[in-house]
Amino acid sequence: MARVYLDHNATTPLRREARAAMVAAMDLVGNPSSVHAEGRAAKAVMERARSQLAEALGAQAADIVFVSGATEAAALALAGRGLHGAGIEHDAVRAWVEEDLEVDGLGRVAVSDPAASTLQLANSETGIVQDLPEGLAVSDWTQGFGKIPVAFDWSGVDMAFVSAHKIGGPKGIGALILRRGLDVEARIRGGGQEMGRRSGTENLIGIAGFGAAAQAATQDLESGVWDRVAKLRNILEKTLDHSARDTIFVGKDGARLPNTSLMITPGWKGETQVMQMDLAGFAVSAGSACSSGKVKASSVLRAMGYSETEASCALRVSLGPETTEAEVLSFAEAWAAAHERFARRGR
Amino acid sequence: MARVYLDHNATTPLRREARAAMVAAMDLVGNPSSVHAEGRAAKAVMERARSQLAEALGAQAADIVFVSGATEAAALALAGRGLHGAGIEHDAVRAWVEEDLEVDGLGRVAVSDPAASTLQLANSETGIVQDLPEGLAVSDWTQGFGKIPVAFDWSGVDMAFVSAHKIGGPKGIGALILRRGLDVEARIRGGGQEMGRRSGTENLIGIAGFGAAAQAATQDLESGVWDRVAKLRNILEKTLDHSARDTIFVGKDGARLPNTSLMITPGWKGETQVMQMDLAGFAVSAGSACSSGKVKASSVLRAMGYSETEASCALRVSLGPETTEAEVLSFAEAWAAAHERFARRGR
Repeated sequence: MARVYLDHNATTPLRREARAAMVAAMDLVGNPSSVHAEGRAAKAVMERARSQLAEALGAQAADIVFVSGATEAAALALAGRGLHGAGIEHDAVRAWVEEDLEVDGLGRVAVSDPAASTLQLANSETGIVQDLPEGLAVSDWTQGFGKIPVAFDWSGVDMAFVSAHKIGGPKGIGALILRRGLDVEARIRGGGQEMGRRSGTENLIGIAGFGAAAQAATQDLESGVWDRVAKLRNILEKTLDHSARDTIFVGKDGARLPNTSLMITPGWKGETQVMQMDLAGFAVSAGSACSSGKVKASSVLRAMGYSETEASCALRVSLGPETTEAEVLSFAEAWAAAHERFARRGR
Repeated sequence: MARVYLDHNATTPLRREARAAMVAAMDLVGNPSSVHAEGRAAKAVMERARSQLAEALGAQAADIVFVSGATEAAALALAGRGLHGAGIEHDAVRAWVEEDLEVDGLGRVAVSDPAASTLQLANSETGIVQDLPEGLAVSDWTQGFGKIPVAFDWSGVDMAFVSAHKIGGPKGIGALILRRGLDVEARIRGGGQEMGRRSGTENLIGIAGFGAAAQAATQDLESGVWDRVAKLRNILEKTLDHSARDTIFVGKDGARLPNTSLMITPGWKGETQVMQMDLAGFAVSAGSACSSGKVKASSVLRAMGYSETEASCALRVSLGPETTEAEVLSFAEAWAAAHERFARRGR
């Protein structure tokens, strides 16, 4: 049987449109900074992608800074500022913030001083979506962008950042979006690219793929693809709930991304589940895909008040725009079978 | 007539091998940090590329840190260290150093304290190659790697860095190489990728292309491709020298990259030459490709003691492994014709 990939929050397969744009960009010979025809052609492709991304984000092209990914964008937006943040943020954000914002049991974060705080749009593990307060300094949109509607220019957020590989673009390219009039101190300096905010010859092929992916992702969103996915996710949760009555679906009753299900099955280690499902042909995750090999309990769940033990028994299933009902049902079946073996052994 | 690209020091066309590796990597679904089969397959491709690059560099795979390019690598190796450097370094290096190393009229740099200094292997504008002193703290190998033999493990250099797009790989990927036992403070933090030295989901497609390009570049170097290119460069200089006796070929009598010719034609602005040659179908450069649009005299030539006026009249021609004699001769012809028009107007 073909493998079933249900780990789209870790990374997504490359969209057809992104692949085509990247292959086309491979024929470009020039450096976008060169003034000759080859350089101008490269620059034109880059600026077209910037416009595609701007439109998808509801932002202005001039306010977009291309960087190597959301992790670099987080450093660019946050380093040295000592903003307040919560324990549910991604490690790329937690690296730079004062981790003193309260998280309630439903995963919601209370922000008292938005101008001095950062808050994610959606959580990569739970899918829980936040209400972003007006005037928020920085927001990590990596997991929300492409799955729920966003409009930077209407968001009231000063800076946001996104990553191509979460929306069907390539890994290694992302963007920081800055409200007009704001600036950041460049951390990568030299040639003065990206209006001096981020030097270095631009990742032209990646940028071309990012623009095309952003455009395609927006079309998916507008055409209701994620409504279909949300139905599949709900079918999955209902089915699994029947198989394992003690399994908790985190954030089930609040605002969540349409594609994400994080479930805790007490006593059954997430890592074990991932390996058993992998052997059965399914790619799922025990949480964030970072820090390969490190088996540690989800800090997101810990921040939400779950115990270390509960947090270590989490499994994340994240669907994609092309996930089918058959895939979801076959996963549910395989998981239920493994769970039954676990339950028999455990008692 | 087809365009002739003679700006390989700015960026290179994508090598066939790199393109194939990148297109193959586009089919990989997983995140290299994921533990499931898709993740492990992605990781395997990344580690294969790391080995290819290590072999091309004469280094160990474990000592290679993938970053988004030489500019990021420079920041990672140099920021906050206050190393001594020379005015001929690339802006990505100059951003972080005490610019107090002397440059002589032949472009050679005297290093008195190697452990506290940085020195490039070869200059992007002049092609001048340095003798790197034993125990050098950091060396920019961006322009030398692939064109002249290097072996990191025998170089006596503590850290070096390279970029894929100068050797026929894609833009947006590079590497820092660290002598075993050394470390750097991560500037991009989060998931802990690259052994904690550089977080962020890896640019898998770019890395695959980088590895393949490094391998192919090494084969080119070993098979004598650059000897052939050096002969073409020398033919070019001899031909132009006949057409314009007042033109100076910078660094002609010392060690130079085989593909680079930087020529100063007093009174004839480099930018003007670039535009005239562009219209005639040739892509060449007035110096570094960075800082698009900024027309300023070469800081490299200024550091070598040339006047502001001389430095603003420089044209760089940089050949590639596939450049033909016919291309070189047609460029020489076009340039000589433009030069004659210039000389007639100027007198």
